[in-house]
Parts: sequence; structure tokens; C-alpha cells
Amino acid sequence: MFKEILDNVKKNKPLVHNITNYVTVNDVANVILACGASPIMADDEKEVEEITTICNGLNINIGTLNSRTISSMKKAGNRANQLAHPVVLDPVGVGASQLRTNTAFDLIKHIQLSVIRGNISEIKVLAFNEGSVHGVDANVEDAVTEKNLDKCITFVKNYAKQVQAVVAVTGAIDLVSDGQKCYVIKNGTKEMSSITGTGCQLSGLITAFISANQDHILEATAAAVCTMGLAGQIAKENMLAHEGNATYRNRIIDAIYHIDGDILEKGAKYEIR
Amino acid sequence: MFKEILDNVKKNKPLVHNITNYVTVNDVANVILACGASPIMADDEKEVEEITTICNGLNINIGTLNSRTISSMKKAGNRANQLAHPVVLDPVGVGASQLRTNTAFDLIKHIQLSVIRGNISEIKVLAFNEGSVHGVDANVEDAVTEKNLDKCITFVKNYAKQVQAVVAVTGAIDLVSDGQKCYVIKNGTKEMSSITGTGCQLSGLITAFISANQDHILEATAAAVCTMGLAGQIAKENMLAHEGNATYRNRIIDAIYHIDGDILEKGAKYEIR
Amino acid sequence: MFKEILDNVKKNKPLVHNITNYVTVNDVANVILACGASPIMADDEKEVEEITTICNGLNINIGTLNSRTISSMKKAGNRANQLAHPVVLDPVGVGASQLRTNTAFDLIKHIQLSVIRGNISEIKVLAFNEGSVHGVDANVEDAVTEKNLDKCITFVKNYAKQVQAVVAVTGAIDLVSDGQKCYVIKNGTKEMSSITGTGCQLSGLITAFISANQDHILEATAAAVCTMGLAGQIAKENMLAHEGNATYRNRIIDAIYHIDGDILEKGAKYEIR
Repeated sequence: MFKEILDNVKKNKPLVHNITNYVTVNDVANVILACGASPIMADDEKEVEEITTICNGLNINIGTLNSRTISSMKKAGNRANQLAHPVVLDPVGVGASQLRTNTAFDLIKHIQLSVIRGNISEIKVLAFNEGSVHGVDANVEDAVTEKNLDKCITFVKNYAKQVQAVVAVTGAIDLVSDGQKCYVIKNGTKEMSSITGTGCQLSGLITAFISANQDHILEATAAAVCTMGLAGQIAKENMLAHEGNATYRNRIIDAIYHIDGDILEKGAKYEIR
Repeated sequence: MFKEILDNVKKNKPLVHNITNYVTVNDVANVILACGASPIMADDEKEVEEITTICNGLNINIGTLNSRTISSMKKAGNRANQLAHPVVLDPVGVGASQLRTNTAFDLIKHIQLSVIRGNISEIKVLAFNEGSVHGVDANVEDAVTEKNLDKCITFVKNYAKQVQAVVAVTGAIDLVSDGQKCYVIKNGTKEMSSITGTGCQLSGLITAFISANQDHILEATAAAVCTMGLAGQIAKENMLAHEGNATYRNRIIDAIYHIDGDILEKGAKYEIR
Repeated sequence: MFKEILDNVKKNKPLVHNITNYVTVNDVANVILACGASPIMADDEKEVEEITTICNGLNINIGTLNSRTISSMKKAGNRANQLAHPVVLDPVGVGASQLRTNTAFDLIKHIQLSVIRGNISEIKVLAFNEGSVHGVDANVEDAVTEKNLDKCITFVKNYAKQVQAVVAVTGAIDLVSDGQKCYVIKNGTKEMSSITGTGCQLSGLITAFISANQDHILEATAAAVCTMGLAGQIAKENMLAHEGNATYRNRIIDAIYHIDGDILEKGAKYEIR
């Protein structure tokens, strides 16, 4: 099924509206192009509704949140809901400040989200309105491991049910659930965490995938997560000894550029629980 | 003549003031450095007039337009006009929202532009105040082809006459006209459209080229367009099988870094109509 | 001692709060990750105090200064001072506009800075409240050379004493002084000036280094300057003939990713005056 999902992205070339942070925005644009979709970045309150209208999906990322764009996020989100466009929220660094936490809860309350993607610490902050993050990274003690896997799956399923969205928790092991089923995904490499913005890129990729597969939000989200991880694996094989995180960033996007439905189908490592 | 134009850029090292979007800004800065010029990015209303004053040319790009910087664009443009500095407008995504369309028309009305560079759909929106864009990309049905070439040349010449600026329409075939002559340029590759910001980069490059060649705006614009396309061709030859759009982006800027007057003179593929 | 300093960065993984420009922000994030630290970018007035509180150091860069973030810089700086977190100021383009000059002086007046890093022209503007910059680059006539070295060392020492901070003047020859001692550093390559943002990256790196070595601000700053220059040298050796400034940018960050305490100790080229 993942083959069909990625084929749909390449065939439909969905236009993705991104309201995102200025740190990783260029990589997000290139990753969306790499998978065959098309990005547009627009965050001014005066144009976001029009821009969302001509797009197929909306990606909201609070990575360098500023007061000016919060109302843009809400307006775009509401318009997307009216048009039944899928909406992704990436709650970068939620818990690190009241502004981020309040904004994330506000967006969740007022917008019907299709997918929420974050690291485990961010999702715990959303679920319990407490807990802490290490800046924009997950706390080591929160990490999803083989040992606490059952408990984590239950947590993600429950939060997905509560929030009525697909929830994607990404890390060494990724969990993607709609509240009923949970994809447990083991693609990826540990070196991916040494690059800024792999999470932001993944949220852009998810938006592209679900925009082209609106009847299969859960599967398309899982397919995007597998694609990103598989790209990390392929990119690692192409690394020279002297290359580091800056080149690895490029090689991952390059790998996504070359992954087609067949490669994804063959390389995706997951089980459904 | 293109040799002399690029030699002038490398000799004069013009300082280029950019008010541009946050998606592609880093690549714009690096491409300006690659050709031998020097970039400065500044968009606050309180400093743009001073910054433009110490620069040799101004590049205005509405890619992630926000209300805060519209007045900055106007102030900088007016100051540049007073000082007879060349000004380039890149109307990214004009037609995609009223904010972009109104702003583009407002800038064209109040600033004497030297060059307007866009894709064919963007330029059609400016010329006819109607038509549509596919986000920030050209509509496929608008594309300049061998078949409609005569008609497109007439269109670009007419719009250049009307707007009293050099107009550069870029795509598979590029057209650059001052209303009298039209350069028809066939450098470039189709893969360049899979990278975010090649258009923005080209607008930066054009600003550098015309800032160092203020008596030859038409020729310098055409030379910059050829340089970008030629860089795309050279970069493509240097691509490894597993590399994709992220690395291609770097290799294009790398190629510009190595293109000198002789290489440009030899590699430029154009006819004048 | 440089070995121990870099080992501390990798061991402590300091969290660095950056209020920085949107041109080079992605490279700043990746360079901070490359050395083993962790970046967070946040510039909204409503969250900067909280963000700085959870971080170990603060990096303020006025590269694309806008009125909205000046108050954020002050609030974050004051909070960092209360918590005794080290604060770095990168006065990008000071002297190019009143806004930048006034803001830089205002920040220096109200915040106790640990380190000020700039090119020689920028530091002269700060020291003498006069002089000129060539956009964001140093004036050629200001350059620190073997010929004027003694005079430059005296200047940097005096300014460091006056401003009660470590002052790092970077260029072909780098000078780092706390007013008493002055590190004269000769790592680096001339090609590094063809990349946008090596200065911004260095300021991020310095913040990471001093955040993990708060009792050795002078030495940690000098170690960061040597690391950046050494990375430029290593990266140059890894460049292919057709590669240019875009790839060089990545290879420098890659090199930092691989530099450990031993490599730094061996490759650092400096004398103390």
C-alpha cells in the first residue's frame, strides 16, 4: 500500500502550504519537492486564507513562533478545515515556553488536525500538560525503547483517540497511531538527530503524503515516516569518511528524491500493533 | 560582450541589497558571493534607506511577503531610484493572493524598476491583471515552447515596453527583453525546477550583474540568465547517480563560483530576436 | 587545554539560545550540533526569557535586525545576566545603519557581554563610534596584517578592557583578547570569506564552547576560533576541483563534526601575546 501512497504523491503533485519556522524552511521546501510535491510558504495574516485555498494541505510548525503569525496559523487552519484540507501540526519545543504551550493547545482546540507529529517529550507535554523538554529535543528518559514499547503504544493510541487525530511520535522507534492501530516503525539512523530540522522536514513530507492520500491519513503518515527513515539509511551508505551532518542533511533529501514506490515498499520496516 | 559583463562583476564586486524571503535567502546570499559580488540582507523600515545608499543595487523579492516589509520595499526602492541604483523585482507567487498582487502592482507603480524577473504565469498576471499561478510555479499551459515562441516574444516585448523595464521570463526557454530586442535563451536543465529558489537566486544574480553594468541592463540581465542556466548544465554533469535536488542546489552555486567570462562567453546559448 | 575545552562541549552538550538572523540561521544550528551542543532559536519577546532560562548560553546576532526583536534581545540578555549565563554579541554590519549602531551600543550598555565577535571594521565602529564598513564585510584597509599586528593587538586589548568582555576580531589573522592576554590565531583559509555566514557560525560555536567552559571564557573563545579555522583548512583539503563555495560551506560544518579534542589540540595555530 505504501507504494500506491507514494505513487499518488508523484502523480498528484499536491501543493503544500507551510507556515513554518525560518531555521529549517529551506530544507522543508526541498524535501517537499524531492518527494514530488510542491511547497509554498506564506505566513502573513492577510494572505494565508487565500494561499491555503489554492493548496491541497497545510503544515503548521511552531519552531520559531512569533506573535505575528499565531493568528495566521489559526486563520489558515480554519480555512483548511472548511475546505476539508488535511492539516498537520508540528509542536516544536512545546513545553519550553508558555507561548509555545498555549499556542499549541489553542491550535488543537480550534483546528481539526489530521496529524500531530512531534518527539515523545513534545507529545507528552500535549497529552499531560506537564513534563519537560530539553529545548527542542526529546528528554532521554522519555525515549521509546524496546523495553517500554507496549506502554508507549498504549500512550500514543490513547492520545490519538483523545485528540481525534493521527499522532506520530518520532525518535529511534517511531509510533504512528489513529487511536486504533499503531504503526511501530524502525527505519532511520541515530545520526539523523545530529541534523537540525529532520523533524520539520518529516512534517512537511507527511503533509505532502496525506494531501495526496486524503482517504488514508494513517497509512500515508506511516509511509512518510518510513520514507524519511529509509532516506536516512540510504544516505548513510553514501557518506564518505570525512563527511558530517551538513552533507548528511543533503544526502537525506537526495535519497528522498530517488525513493519511488517500489523502493519504499521494499525498505519500509514496520509492524502494526 | 557577456565576458566583459561578468568580468565587471568580479572586478567591481558590487554590494547588493536584498529584501527577500526567508525560504531561499541563504542560497541567494551564496550565489551573489559565488559570482564575485557581495550581499547584504536588510528589511527593517528603519534601516533600508541607509543600507540601500551604501549598496550598488537593490533586489526586491515578495516570496514570503509580510505586511511589515512592504513599506521597507517602497522606501528602499524610492531611495534606490533617487540614487539611480538599479532595482530588480521578483514577484514570487503574484496572483496567488491579493496581498501579493496588490503589492506587486504598488511597487511597479511607485518604483522605477530596472528588471522584473518571474515565471511566465507571474508575468502574465502582471501584464493582464488576471490569470492564475500554481502556487509559486508556472502553469504548465502557460509554458514558453518552440511552438508558441513568436507569440511569447511579442508578449514579453510588449509588456517590457509598457512597464518600461527589462522583463525576464524564465522557464525551459528564457526570454529577456527591453521592449526592442529579445534574448531567447536555451541554457538550463529541467531538473532545476526540482530545487526551491533557483528563481530567487537568479534574481539576486541579475541584481549583481546589472549593478556592475549599469549602462547595459538588458545585456547584463541576459548574461545572468545564461550564467544560471549554464551553471545548471555544468552542475548536472558533476552529479553522481545517488545525488538529488539538495546536492544539485549546491553544485549549481559551485558552478557559478567557477564560471568566468570565457566560460560564460563560450557556454551561453541564445539568439536575439 | 583546547582539548579539554572541546571535550567539555561534547560531554556537557550545552543548550544554546540563539536570537539570530534568518540568512545564516540554518548553518548556525547545524554548526552548533556539529560540535556536540544543541541549538534553540527563539526571538519572540513573549518567550525569550523562558527559553534563555532553560539554556546554558545566549547568542545575539543583529544580522537581519528588525524592530520587533530588539526588545527580545534585551530581555533575553538581562535574563541571561541574572542567571550568570554567558552572552555573545555578533554586531553584524554595525556602522552600516543607525539602527544597527544604536542597537549594538544599547545592547553593550544594558547587557554584560561575555564575548563580542566581529570583523575588524565592526569592532572599530564599536570602539570609536566612527569608521565605516563595506556592508557586512570588513574594509580591506582595516585588515589585520603581519605589518600592523602590534598595533592591532593593542587596539583589541584596549577595547576588551574598556568593554569588559572578551573581544574576538576575526579575519585572515584572528585576535582574541580579554584585555590582558591576546591570542593571535592563524588557522583558516582565504576561501572562507566567499561563504555567507562563517562569522555567524563562529559566534554560535563560541557560545557553545563558552557555555560548556564558563570558567575559561577567553580560552574557550580562542578554542572556538581555532576550531572554525581548522575546519576551513580540513574542508579545503576535501574539496574537488569543480566544487565551490556552497559545497565548501557544508564541508566546513562536516569538518567540525569530526574535530575532537586531540585534532584541535594538534591543529590549533596560535601564539599568546
